[in-house]
Amino acid sequence: MKNRQEQNRQERFAAASAQVDRAALAPLPRSRKIHVQGSRPDLRVPMREITQSDTPASSGNERNPPVFVYDCSGPYTDPDADIDLRSGLPPLRAAWIEERNDSEILPGPTSIHGRERAADPALAALRFPGLARKPRRARPARNVTQMHYARQGVITPEMEFVAIRENLNRQAWLENLRASGPRGEKLAAILSRQHPGKAFGADGDGIAGLTAEFVRGEIARGRAIIPANINHPESEPMIIGRAFLTKINANIGNSALSSSIAEEVDKMTWAIRWGGDTVMDLSTGKHIHETREWIIRNSPVPIGAVPIYQALEKVDGKAEELDWNLFRDTLIEQAEQGVDYFTLHAGVLLAHIPLTARRLTGIVSRGGAIMAKWCLAHHRENFLHTHFEEICEIMKAYDIAFSLGDGLRPGSIHDANDEAQLAELRTLGELAGIAWRHDVQTMIEGPGHVPLHLIHENMALELDWCKEAPFYTLGPLVTDIAPGHDHIASAIGAATIGWHGAAMLCYVTPKEHLGLPDKDDVKAGIIAYKLAAHAADLAKGHPGAQIRDNALSMARYEFRWEDQFNLGLDPDKAREFHDETLPREAARTAHFCSMCGPRFCSMKITREVREFARAAGMAETDALVKGMEMKAAEFVGNGAEFDRNA
Amino acid sequence: MKNRQEQNRQERFAAASAQVDRAALAPLPRSRKIHVQGSRPDLRVPMREITQSDTPASSGNERNPPVFVYDCSGPYTDPDADIDLRSGLPPLRAAWIEERNDSEILPGPTSIHGRERAADPALAALRFPGLARKPRRARPARNVTQMHYARQGVITPEMEFVAIRENLNRQAWLENLRASGPRGEKLAAILSRQHPGKAFGADGDGIAGLTAEFVRGEIARGRAIIPANINHPESEPMIIGRAFLTKINANIGNSALSSSIAEEVDKMTWAIRWGGDTVMDLSTGKHIHETREWIIRNSPVPIGAVPIYQALEKVDGKAEELDWNLFRDTLIEQAEQGVDYFTLHAGVLLAHIPLTARRLTGIVSRGGAIMAKWCLAHHRENFLHTHFEEICEIMKAYDIAFSLGDGLRPGSIHDANDEAQLAELRTLGELAGIAWRHDVQTMIEGPGHVPLHLIHENMALELDWCKEAPFYTLGPLVTDIAPGHDHIASAIGAATIGWHGAAMLCYVTPKEHLGLPDKDDVKAGIIAYKLAAHAADLAKGHPGAQIRDNALSMARYEFRWEDQFNLGLDPDKAREFHDETLPREAARTAHFCSMCGPRFCSMKITREVREFARAAGMAETDALVKGMEMKAAEFVGNGAEFDRNA
Repeated sequence: MKNRQEQNRQERFAAASAQVDRAALAPLPRSRKIHVQGSRPDLRVPMREITQSDTPASSGNERNPPVFVYDCSGPYTDPDADIDLRSGLPPLRAAWIEERNDSEILPGPTSIHGRERAADPALAALRFPGLARKPRRARPARNVTQMHYARQGVITPEMEFVAIRENLNRQAWLENLRASGPRGEKLAAILSRQHPGKAFGADGDGIAGLTAEFVRGEIARGRAIIPANINHPESEPMIIGRAFLTKINANIGNSALSSSIAEEVDKMTWAIRWGGDTVMDLSTGKHIHETREWIIRNSPVPIGAVPIYQALEKVDGKAEELDWNLFRDTLIEQAEQGVDYFTLHAGVLLAHIPLTARRLTGIVSRGGAIMAKWCLAHHRENFLHTHFEEICEIMKAYDIAFSLGDGLRPGSIHDANDEAQLAELRTLGELAGIAWRHDVQTMIEGPGHVPLHLIHENMALELDWCKEAPFYTLGPLVTDIAPGHDHIASAIGAATIGWHGAAMLCYVTPKEHLGLPDKDDVKAGIIAYKLAAHAADLAKGHPGAQIRDNALSMARYEFRWEDQFNLGLDPDKAREFHDETLPREAARTAHFCSMCGPRFCSMKITREVREFARAAGMAETDALVKGMEMKAAEFVGNGAEFDRNA
Repeated sequence: MKNRQEQNRQERFAAASAQVDRAALAPLPRSRKIHVQGSRPDLRVPMREITQSDTPASSGNERNPPVFVYDCSGPYTDPDADIDLRSGLPPLRAAWIEERNDSEILPGPTSIHGRERAADPALAALRFPGLARKPRRARPARNVTQMHYARQGVITPEMEFVAIRENLNRQAWLENLRASGPRGEKLAAILSRQHPGKAFGADGDGIAGLTAEFVRGEIARGRAIIPANINHPESEPMIIGRAFLTKINANIGNSALSSSIAEEVDKMTWAIRWGGDTVMDLSTGKHIHETREWIIRNSPVPIGAVPIYQALEKVDGKAEELDWNLFRDTLIEQAEQGVDYFTLHAGVLLAHIPLTARRLTGIVSRGGAIMAKWCLAHHRENFLHTHFEEICEIMKAYDIAFSLGDGLRPGSIHDANDEAQLAELRTLGELAGIAWRHDVQTMIEGPGHVPLHLIHENMALELDWCKEAPFYTLGPLVTDIAPGHDHIASAIGAATIGWHGAAMLCYVTPKEHLGLPDKDDVKAGIIAYKLAAHAADLAKGHPGAQIRDNALSMARYEFRWEDQFNLGLDPDKAREFHDETLPREAARTAHFCSMCGPRFCSMKITREVREFARAAGMAETDALVKGMEMKAAEFVGNGAEFDRNA
């Protein structure tokens, strides 16, 4: 009976997984996938081009050239791509990896568990059916990490790829704008202007600085990472570091209680559609191995994992039965599948555990709690810590990045920035130092639950103790009282810590603390975090980040409703909201919306103000501006007369 | 035909308005309205008491005393109250106002428009049917503002009321907790602990300082206001100032295109149910006068308005036809209905308008655009500015607070903190000085759209130029690219500026820029802003603010799911999310949820860790803590050995 059920389940799965949800395949409205050509034919960097409508003018319509935005969605949003989840994505980086000639193809998985799963006929229907792929590993004594290359002075295609990607095709946009006519030439100055931020300095030097060589330097110094396992050649390179665009991670993964492989693959394509820069597969139920294979083979973004979850499944949930050999085998199993970064709670030391005794909510990281239980049960030091150098050897054989987990992160405002958390952060800094001696790329995970005024301390200590390794934070949530809305509670903290320098923000969905997120929750979490990350990029002054804000605001001012929708993070929702009250096509060109109605639209009145001024004797816009500026100068000149005590 | 339609509409309205939405009447789950008694029998301050369930323990259940939270919802959530929208709320403050013996009852409205509306039989069906109320006004040469009393050294019942309200019944909670048993006594130290913030200092002095005399001092200095028109005796006093809990405002109001009076009254009761501290009626359609009367008579929170909207309706939308006499009549009309604060765009000066010429999005405040149009049309100074002292005379005759509008606030990230905005802010500071010479309570409105790193400058300049008058900000939105999610984009800015000292945050709904919000949008906006305001209160260190976070986190740690839902801002949503995947009653006591499943629940594992440690030789919690602390001391003692370069 049970076998029959399992068979049914597997058949349903096979059918479901043959194709991706159609909704996740269509390009976003008026968007088109383009590729910016790099220095070699196979280096083509994807962008999303958002077409804008014309601005009506008395002298004929004025063109508004397209805006380019960063695109995580991979081939899924490319109508020309041939998508079949059962085959997986094309191995974009395969040639680059092979050319380096420092790795070799293995005859098959070298992990015991990997071989067992591959040989088990009962898993046939669940197993990823694409062309059998042999795992790849560094040749003996070779190091295949991007950090290693960077420190040798080598600029890899991956580095060039991310340099192009981070520049957002800004130069082409500006040229198109200038070429679009006299109006475009004037607008270029306004639309390319942005507030200076602290990361790049006020003079825009960062724009010139965003080169492949700059990328190489940041990676060599440990200030940025490109998670790029040589067994995940399908991934489009991306960079995590505070000099770059703030990235976001989306967690997916089933729990023992719900969801299937097909659902998780579906969540992955959905998450990247809305802007997930990396995806962590946190599955803890059955078939972790098979789920992961499906996800990696179909993922154009780096995949992170927490190997201890699977190790715990292997010992039936009994933390005290974990041991190094079993764990090591799990690392290799996942390494050879292509996981790009591992969260390892190697900083949870025996000596730290008593520091949690006075906490309100103890240890809230799953991995942290597992390791603490193991340490106490054996009264021995965390085996992730004692075997750390051996782990480094594995990491550099596949180029897996460390994401050093904050197993002692605070789970409540009360516990924020306490001794336990900070003691662990110091330890993570030490471990980063060890990882770097092996040229292993490393980032540091951060909290958690932290009130607004204590967020900056987290970042400052991380930069100091962890010597500027990229900080990858979960939120933080700035209050505990918003269950059901924790995507907002944490987006506030995420934007703040991103501004101060966190390189990647792990999303939190509205279901946090309450249940496993579904697709709606995944989208809500992603949008909140894209928003937070973008707010951080504006505040950091990432070159070109403000172009999109400026373009959208211009569209808003000109009542180009469709453009306003499409330039936003969530065109579908914006259109839906607008059309709820003004559904007719005509309303999409109306010079007002239902919020204020035609008489009270300030944008409309402002246009009238400007037109009024123009009619009143100043025929040319320039003359108006000039006239207004004269008045302004007069006004500013009189500034001294302001009486602050009046 | 048109009359017939109108008649139908009015009949439907009359039927609909007879009763409030039942959903808005029920108390929130396990919540009960209580009143804290003040120094006189008619001074009873409402709070919401949230009952918690017991914690199971081997020695019998341990009690968790109720938590008290601030309650804006008025009598609507009190099952003992007799609610009839057609009668309005009881005039809570009537006796206090009368006792002061400095105001008199007028024979009827003194505004021309007010008299016309009252006399128009065609409006009978729309008119508020409650007992005919005569307006009240200061006796000749008297000043009835709370600021005036404060400066005379008088502590009014309103001041005592807000002092009690701001203390959140914290003392009673603490006493109940200590009295609940030995566990409660131990927990008292943990649950009452909070991170020090900057507003009150680290030593909790502020707690003792939150007295009626402290309130009086803050009002006398202009650092706080109690909006309390003597014609709105139904309002429960509340205070806006940066030493107090951060408040939020919800905008309601129909536009010419949609919604009715009944809908707007319904939105008001809905907004205060979820925590709106004040409500602004921004109606711009027909029947502004009648809508406002319905809202005020039924509102337990202060009502704000923007009189220029109605004035513009009176001149059929032609800004250039506005004049001082018409506007003055509108102020008096609204004053005598009971509006508690007026947004007046008196800082939009002729000389400022040219400063907007280089903007991306011009003037985005409706009131600002109207005044700019008038100034340009007449080439004369803004009549709100030239008649400012006359306006002060009106304000002090009814105790209406100024909310000096930022008509030149930036409408895009591009325009943030520009010359136009800052020039206006300086002017608002001057006007605040004039208002204070008349003892008129005043707050200053702020932006708008501001990137994260420029928010602090707004607050700092406001404190300086406006001499610490309460700052009341709209968001600000930290990016322009999130239409459909602007409640989040702005909650990020709101939390940040609240932390820095903004006293009230004007909410933004998800429909901002797209359409008129419905009830779902109102709730989404309110929750996002309660969350932001609370995050600010934690960061400011408002005394007792963290109690709720601590209690909720404790409930979370103890798997008291119902308490976790009920202590949150939105119990309904939290329960709905939880039950989506684990609907059965048993799951509400389970020691896990569907997010991680039973095996991977970190909270569960942590409890096991603690139990394990206890079983391993330390029978008593105290002994465990002690043992752990010894280890911790050992660890900290060895801290010097940490090698930061390891």
